[in-house]
Amino acid sequence: MRIALAQLNYTIGAFDDNTKKITGAIARAKRENADVVVFSELSVCGYPPMDLLDYDYFIDRCQQSIRTIAKECEGIIAIVGSPAHNHDPIGKKICNAAFILQDKEIRGIVCKTLLPTYDIFDEYRYFERNRHFSLCDLNGQKVAVTICEDLWYHHTSDVSGKGKLYTVNPVDELCRLKPDFIINISASPFSYTHIKVREDIIAMNALTCHVPVFYVNQTGANAELIFDGGSLVINAKGAVIDRMALFKEDFRIYETQNITENTADQSPVKTEDTIALIHDALITGIRDYFRKMHLTKAILGLSGGIDSAVTLVLACRALGSENLRVLLMPSQYSSDHSVQDAVDLAEKLNVQYDIIPIQDIFARYQHALKPLFMNLQEDVTEENIQSRIRGNLLMALSNKFGHILLNTSNKSEASVGYGTLYGDMIGGLAVLGDVYKTDVYKLAGYINSEGIIIPPNTITKPPSAELRPGQKDSDSLPEYEILDKVLFHYIELRRSQEEIAALGIDKSLVQKIINMVTSSEYKRYQTPPALRISNKAFGLGRRMPLVAKY
Amino acid sequence: MRIALAQLNYTIGAFDDNTKKITGAIARAKRENADVVVFSELSVCGYPPMDLLDYDYFIDRCQQSIRTIAKECEGIIAIVGSPAHNHDPIGKKICNAAFILQDKEIRGIVCKTLLPTYDIFDEYRYFERNRHFSLCDLNGQKVAVTICEDLWYHHTSDVSGKGKLYTVNPVDELCRLKPDFIINISASPFSYTHIKVREDIIAMNALTCHVPVFYVNQTGANAELIFDGGSLVINAKGAVIDRMALFKEDFRIYETQNITENTADQSPVKTEDTIALIHDALITGIRDYFRKMHLTKAILGLSGGIDSAVTLVLACRALGSENLRVLLMPSQYSSDHSVQDAVDLAEKLNVQYDIIPIQDIFARYQHALKPLFMNLQEDVTEENIQSRIRGNLLMALSNKFGHILLNTSNKSEASVGYGTLYGDMIGGLAVLGDVYKTDVYKLAGYINSEGIIIPPNTITKPPSAELRPGQKDSDSLPEYEILDKVLFHYIELRRSQEEIAALGIDKSLVQKIINMVTSSEYKRYQTPPALRISNKAFGLGRRMPLVAKY
Repeated sequence: MRIALAQLNYTIGAFDDNTKKITGAIARAKRENADVVVFSELSVCGYPPMDLLDYDYFIDRCQQSIRTIAKECEGIIAIVGSPAHNHDPIGKKICNAAFILQDKEIRGIVCKTLLPTYDIFDEYRYFERNRHFSLCDLNGQKVAVTICEDLWYHHTSDVSGKGKLYTVNPVDELCRLKPDFIINISASPFSYTHIKVREDIIAMNALTCHVPVFYVNQTGANAELIFDGGSLVINAKGAVIDRMALFKEDFRIYETQNITENTADQSPVKTEDTIALIHDALITGIRDYFRKMHLTKAILGLSGGIDSAVTLVLACRALGSENLRVLLMPSQYSSDHSVQDAVDLAEKLNVQYDIIPIQDIFARYQHALKPLFMNLQEDVTEENIQSRIRGNLLMALSNKFGHILLNTSNKSEASVGYGTLYGDMIGGLAVLGDVYKTDVYKLAGYINSEGIIIPPNTITKPPSAELRPGQKDSDSLPEYEILDKVLFHYIELRRSQEEIAALGIDKSLVQKIINMVTSSEYKRYQTPPALRISNKAFGLGRRMPLVAKY
Repeated sequence: MRIALAQLNYTIGAFDDNTKKITGAIARAKRENADVVVFSELSVCGYPPMDLLDYDYFIDRCQQSIRTIAKECEGIIAIVGSPAHNHDPIGKKICNAAFILQDKEIRGIVCKTLLPTYDIFDEYRYFERNRHFSLCDLNGQKVAVTICEDLWYHHTSDVSGKGKLYTVNPVDELCRLKPDFIINISASPFSYTHIKVREDIIAMNALTCHVPVFYVNQTGANAELIFDGGSLVINAKGAVIDRMALFKEDFRIYETQNITENTADQSPVKTEDTIALIHDALITGIRDYFRKMHLTKAILGLSGGIDSAVTLVLACRALGSENLRVLLMPSQYSSDHSVQDAVDLAEKLNVQYDIIPIQDIFARYQHALKPLFMNLQEDVTEENIQSRIRGNLLMALSNKFGHILLNTSNKSEASVGYGTLYGDMIGGLAVLGDVYKTDVYKLAGYINSEGIIIPPNTITKPPSAELRPGQKDSDSLPEYEILDKVLFHYIELRRSQEEIAALGIDKSLVQKIINMVTSSEYKRYQTPPALRISNKAFGLGRRMPLVAKY
């Protein structure tokens, strides 16, 4: 049997485009004599459709797509992800299904059993779970068709905090029925540790069931969520036979009889390339945000610092430097060096730049506020006014010329609230919002590894917002090496203050950092979506009460 | 048996404060010879704790609170809501439980069966569900202890779109065991239709099980969620015996033998007082936002229009006019009337006000941008610059003096994106963000019903942002009567474009409005939490993809 895996990049709700991609791949699979072609989870509507699933017309459109696609299924079987109606009189109205399409008809519907409802996932919000297990007959082959999380029963989730998150293992149920192989259709988002974890869990399923697994993931980004793709074929011994492309569409055909226990293993997945993966993921995130919204042009504030420099390079690689424009907005406290570093980078990248000093506008605000502020001392207020002037100027260009503003804040700043709400925290998309400052430096190093692009001075000088004379980040924040370590243990690993202090960090410093995180929740509530590259990003996957004591 | 119902206002994560409230009510119940005292759902930690439940130390603190409270339970039984560990080796690590505390010990733990995971609820994200049903023996009385949603099996949710959302009815299971009565501990948020719906569903449970129901809800607001309280006692015939206070703490004791089928029914719940309920709910929302964050002072921009006028009145009633401060920021396009209306209102309410014209600052932006904008025509860009200048000035005062900025946008504007991101869409809390413009007028009428407070001119003049000469809302938007009708059917009722047009509204207008809603999703993503008074508010309860075609 020849199985084609179609790893495609879907846009949420773009039914016509998605259907066209799917029928195009079916045509190709037919031409290349495949017996079966497999698409990823919820492929007709894209993943995650979120509350669009609550609209009946949206479910109707999904069903129409399935019927349209079925018509192309003559001489081939297609497995396509889509919501399906739950015809039981009780339970939620839809399930998350794999449709088996053959001879122009719907020949079978398999619903998902394990509904991830943690971190960025909300599947139990929408879907009823499967309770009946049977194999699909695909031209005489008995196949266990599963959907994404169905393979993850054995994953010891840091969310569950214990052995198992679920009370049933669908793979156990299906393997009792002796399948010839497992097919899994997924929408499994990227994080820089997830590729390895995913391979391991799929291999474990292949090994315990002692059958090959054909695994199809979606690729491309939908807002903050980046899907790497990286679809897999794994043999009955749990060895990786093939890995499909990362961060792009791919299409490959496999002969099932060739996927034997003796098939040569691929080399283990490389885990040392974390920064390269993050680099590629962020470019995918930027590119798809713009492409799927039918946008082309971006703008950002270039300060001479490392965050905006890295953001600009990534944006140029995603969108082309001809679509970028930057604004340099020196304050009276900006160093000449900063302006020069910013100009150097813009010129190196061939990016249009303008310089608008903010001193005059700032003076006008000070004048207007003088009767109210009287002779009160300058404080963070004046820094924020300047930051918000920059925000206003950037948005003015955005509004006038249609450039989308890219936010350049990093995860360390976002964590501790070191930024100005409605000032430097604004934008349509936060490119580095899930990247700790120490990793921003590594990204800069990676970018410069094949020749200097980012001015060395930008990388080596001490970080500063340059909003008061001689200001440095280290005046207000601990060294980033320590800060990032505490943040990682608190946010990603959800350790307590005591547990983090036990790593050898001063307890009062840990307390201070955690307090900064919790007291800036209100700021993060109003910031743009941040491209997710870790297991615990701000936004969709981390939901904290705004009014709380903790 | 004497049952005390303690309807209290908890702060999320404020373990010491919450425990003190609970033990205080236990002491009072003992003094007043109650046999049992009942507290609401997750009372030790407050509801909803959201992802704090993922932190082990948070669950530990809940257990400590339970042990502390148990020590006070001598000569009385307390039923207290708290997360409990799930000791099964499989399933999520905690359940949402009612602890039965007696003789200084934990005598029983009942876990919640139905875990709401729709709209603002995310319970399956955290909790494992109960699968075993038994009654609690409270001094010889057999009691069905249930938790909130457990009574809602028969609710035909607009979310499920069909008969039943769940596959098991815990009340059926428990009533088979012949309880003497039902206790339900809840955290059921307010919406202006929910009080009636809630009474009906509880009455239906009493009637089908043929036993009285004692229902305890929490009161007070936690960020956008407002809990009315309104705890209930309903007899075996489904008649309401008593309703506890709305929007404040309350404590009452009932003799179970007095709750007979012959007990006199209360009059039906009044549904004509919707606007009064919304008024009280919003004041509760403002008050608790400030009180629970240890804040006292608020600021807002007073334009002379109806939205900021109503917001100011509500804020004064919540916080006291001595804690309010307003800024009038006329543009070159503001009418004298607007400034006068704003001044009149501030003086009437005894609120400190200052006037800062924005014309000079605006001119300075125009000058700075001139080399970039060249001779391009003025457009929405210039309106947005002015709106963001106002935002900057308000935030400057907020930063300098510690006033929290209240956002004054209404739900109609938020729906269609008629507002400036980082301009008039900013603030710590959106007071009217879930109130359609037509209801803002009704609130103004209600406020003025016992004497003019809001200047009549503010109510009668055509709405305008006054950001260009002669501008009116109706230049860009349909009449609010029609707009709000379309929005209500699209957002609250999730109707399709065709279904809304079938109400007799021009189809192209419906299409235009829906397009405005969908294309402004990115703006709402970055706006402050809005006090929730409807069944479908923006924010927590409505989760739409940002990058999508629909």
